Amino acid sequence: MNGAESLVRTLIASDVNMCFANPGTSEMHFVAALDRVEGIRCVLGLAEGVVSAAADAYYRIAEKPAATLLHLGPGLGNAISNLHNARKARSGIVNIVGEHAGYHIAHDAPLTCDIEGLAKPVSHWVKTSTDSRSVAADGAAAVEAARTPPGCIATLILPADTAWGEADGPAVARSPVPRRQVSGDAIRAGARSVQAGGKAATLLLGGDALRGKALEFAGRIAAKTGCRVYSEFNTARQESGAGRVDAPRLPFNVDLGLAMMSGTTQLILVGAKPPVTFFAYPGKPSTLVPPGCAVTEVADVGADLQHAMAALADELGASKTPPALVTSFDPGPEPTGQPTIEGIAAAVTHLIPENAIICDEGITTGRNFGAQTKNARPHEWMGVMGGSIGWGLPAGVGAALAAPDRKVIVFEGDGSGMYTNQALWTMARESLDVTMLIFANRSYQVLQTEFKNVGAGQPGFKARDMLTLDRPDPDWVAIARGYGVDAGRATDLEGLMREMKRGLAVNGPYLVELVI
Amino acid sequence: MNGAESLVRTLIASDVNMCFANPGTSEMHFVAALDRVEGIRCVLGLAEGVVSAAADAYYRIAEKPAATLLHLGPGLGNAISNLHNARKARSGIVNIVGEHAGYHIAHDAPLTCDIEGLAKPVSHWVKTSTDSRSVAADGAAAVEAARTPPGCIATLILPADTAWGEADGPAVARSPVPRRQVSGDAIRAGARSVQAGGKAATLLLGGDALRGKALEFAGRIAAKTGCRVYSEFNTARQESGAGRVDAPRLPFNVDLGLAMMSGTTQLILVGAKPPVTFFAYPGKPSTLVPPGCAVTEVADVGADLQHAMAALADELGASKTPPALVTSFDPGPEPTGQPTIEGIAAAVTHLIPENAIICDEGITTGRNFGAQTKNARPHEWMGVMGGSIGWGLPAGVGAALAAPDRKVIVFEGDGSGMYTNQALWTMARESLDVTMLIFANRSYQVLQTEFKNVGAGQPGFKARDMLTLDRPDPDWVAIARGYGVDAGRATDLEGLMREMKRGLAVNGPYLVELVI
Repeated sequence: MNGAESLVRTLIASDVNMCFANPGTSEMHFVAALDRVEGIRCVLGLAEGVVSAAADAYYRIAEKPAATLLHLGPGLGNAISNLHNARKARSGIVNIVGEHAGYHIAHDAPLTCDIEGLAKPVSHWVKTSTDSRSVAADGAAAVEAARTPPGCIATLILPADTAWGEADGPAVARSPVPRRQVSGDAIRAGARSVQAGGKAATLLLGGDALRGKALEFAGRIAAKTGCRVYSEFNTARQESGAGRVDAPRLPFNVDLGLAMMSGTTQLILVGAKPPVTFFAYPGKPSTLVPPGCAVTEVADVGADLQHAMAALADELGASKTPPALVTSFDPGPEPTGQPTIEGIAAAVTHLIPENAIICDEGITTGRNFGAQTKNARPHEWMGVMGGSIGWGLPAGVGAALAAPDRKVIVFEGDGSGMYTNQALWTMARESLDVTMLIFANRSYQVLQTEFKNVGAGQPGFKARDMLTLDRPDPDWVAIARGYGVDAGRATDLEGLMREMKRGLAVNGPYLVELVI
Repeated sequence: MNGAESLVRTLIASDVNMCFANPGTSEMHFVAALDRVEGIRCVLGLAEGVVSAAADAYYRIAEKPAATLLHLGPGLGNAISNLHNARKARSGIVNIVGEHAGYHIAHDAPLTCDIEGLAKPVSHWVKTSTDSRSVAADGAAAVEAARTPPGCIATLILPADTAWGEADGPAVARSPVPRRQVSGDAIRAGARSVQAGGKAATLLLGGDALRGKALEFAGRIAAKTGCRVYSEFNTARQESGAGRVDAPRLPFNVDLGLAMMSGTTQLILVGAKPPVTFFAYPGKPSTLVPPGCAVTEVADVGADLQHAMAALADELGASKTPPALVTSFDPGPEPTGQPTIEGIAAAVTHLIPENAIICDEGITTGRNFGAQTKNARPHEWMGVMGGSIGWGLPAGVGAALAAPDRKVIVFEGDGSGMYTNQALWTMARESLDVTMLIFANRSYQVLQTEFKNVGAGQPGFKARDMLTLDRPDPDWVAIARGYGVDAGRATDLEGLMREMKRGLAVNGPYLVELVI
């Protein structure tokens, strides 16, 4: 058995069964080992940003890490943007990067570069294997690192000679470490803050607190105490829709965020960080915490948040209180006419299937859907946690592979979708059940607003050119078909309903370009 | 004047007139300044790999740096692969990366990451501006760094508050540093090696030695001494075609490379490094230098190679010897039938227009064209210097903008072209005169060979899936049209001739998908 095979067998023995790959020569022995050994699925991405975003979304849904397979420093480079997003989402990934054979590095071949240097800013754990007999143990350590709650990026760099050299056999990662329990002191401090604030208390939730019993307990606490329940601006995975507690997301816009947080005197954090603005703007604060507001952190995102929320409800005597803020299925009448944001949100509220997974990179269009989609059928909502666009389409790949029995919907800006549209090909190859809705405003609409927000005035011709995708308008239907994905175009809400229904009806990928 | 405007005016005053951009919020003041100030052209790329490869190719042709404009760490991440290629090509780039306002970084907003850490592995020079009044001086220093011969990646990180804060005014980069003169001792040592080797001497050329008088002097030396003249495996910019000295490129394949270098007893390097294999393979050497061969470095790639070759010829008494290895326009009969590699090379040899620029990422198909295209009309050939694929299409963007009066041809593999096909949109927007030839073998053909070369045996089903782009076949014609670029498909050599002629006849982008 060579080192590559010992690593593949280690991954499988350690419950890593999915590998998102874009390999090259230095990874060929790893590919050969994946070929020989049953128990791990290989999915090719035509660009590495597809690989890393798919691994991010896979972890969020499957709740266990996938492996990646990347080609030296430049392959890692292409994956960095979405590794950044995965790191901020606290997704676990066993990020395997090939490297030249150890003895070859000194020769400074074309692809030689500082892989560890590139990996460190986007990794929690980095190791370069030194010989073929240690690759299995390194692989097990990488899996353990990736599974460290709530999830870590573990980058294992695999020189080619450690892959082709002799190995003794596989290793096995130790069982996942349970999430840390939150102390009674922290729970009691949180409860005191909730009580002190009353209606001026805000419970800000993140991570696992936005799902299951934890979210339900938030509703019970709100019913008992009158506190507000919000979620962070972006959420890795949030349950929403009919029958669930509504935890509105903090908005991107600073003024709207300040308004939403206004009046809060006690901020209680469960799996969330103190809320910050996405960017800095001249003359505006970097934090959304109101002046004088007390901040109490009950639990960070790596703790056992299900238990923490139960304990917090118990401490507040709210364990049995019927929850507040619970939504109901109420899509209203079918919308018609011009594709306004409100109209699109209404259409989407009609259409979201039961238990669907939403990958939201809808930016200016999708950002404000929550006020309506909270009344859609129950679903889960995933956002771009690191703020780097080009995540949505390949996130759909990872979500669909993690949950083949669920419908996946991607909301995608036409600007953001462009970065990694290669994901469409993987959807076609793997027949993934993903319905994509592209908001084709033919611009980086967010930047047109941001241009004013930062005080840069009115864009002239050259600036406008940097903020638009017209001249020419990309034809998403043609591009999708070029990748083997069927697609249709809509220009009004009737067309949107028709095309989305078509997409949701088929058991495979379908792209809807909505011209707005 | 704010910091951003002081930087833009510094760039213009320092002869930087081109900016390849994919900006975001933190760069809006820079965009606004580009808007206000005349003298610098802005070209938008829909993905940052387009931006960095375009800047690489622009430098090679324009012989002066362009600026980039990238959005924080993740935007830089997307550019890394082609920054790596540019670094290995020794292209100069003023690589401008936005950053959060200094005071905002501690808040760990979604996009916050270690930008300097990501930049260092692909940069020769990295600086983060500390205040708006120093941005102009930092910009001038970045231009000076980028212009350091033969060219450097100078990464300037620009926190948003240094862009919007007050500045005093622009700075100006000092005049470019002249290339270092090669010492008489080095010339004499080189001449002694050439003479000692005679027909067993190999003159290996790189960088600027592959153009103009330097290349001609190589032919004179070959005529006088009988030595061989080769170029490195990939070349940043090599003159080729009728009337020029033929300096065949060392091949990718190790065995072919060893065969080509076999018999060399004296290796003389002018702008080249000792030749190494692209990858390491079990049981094969990392270097192509034959055992016992003496290696003499006359000049590294940053030296004045035109002068060095003149001096070397002079030392050898070859200054006036009519050059050997000179090629003539001899395309042979128009090829017909199946698109074999030889047939495609013959077609291309017919078609290359006078003074065309070739961006070659043809991988398995394009790699061996040289033996025939040396007899095409005179042209220049540029290759992927860092070996990271996804360079060819956006390199066409940069070359066409650097030389609007010349025809640009891109040879592109269908696998490699996929990484950055977004470049097509920029070609459409800017009406760039680029004719693209996609070799659609629907596979990573190179990897199918490499799989065997590394001793991994025969690929099975899973491995084959990692090495192919079929299931489904990408439709390059549809994808190109989706980006607004006209395109046609050919399946035989007659079709190839017809489609390429169509592309070369129009004054704008045209893509030919050749199914092979």
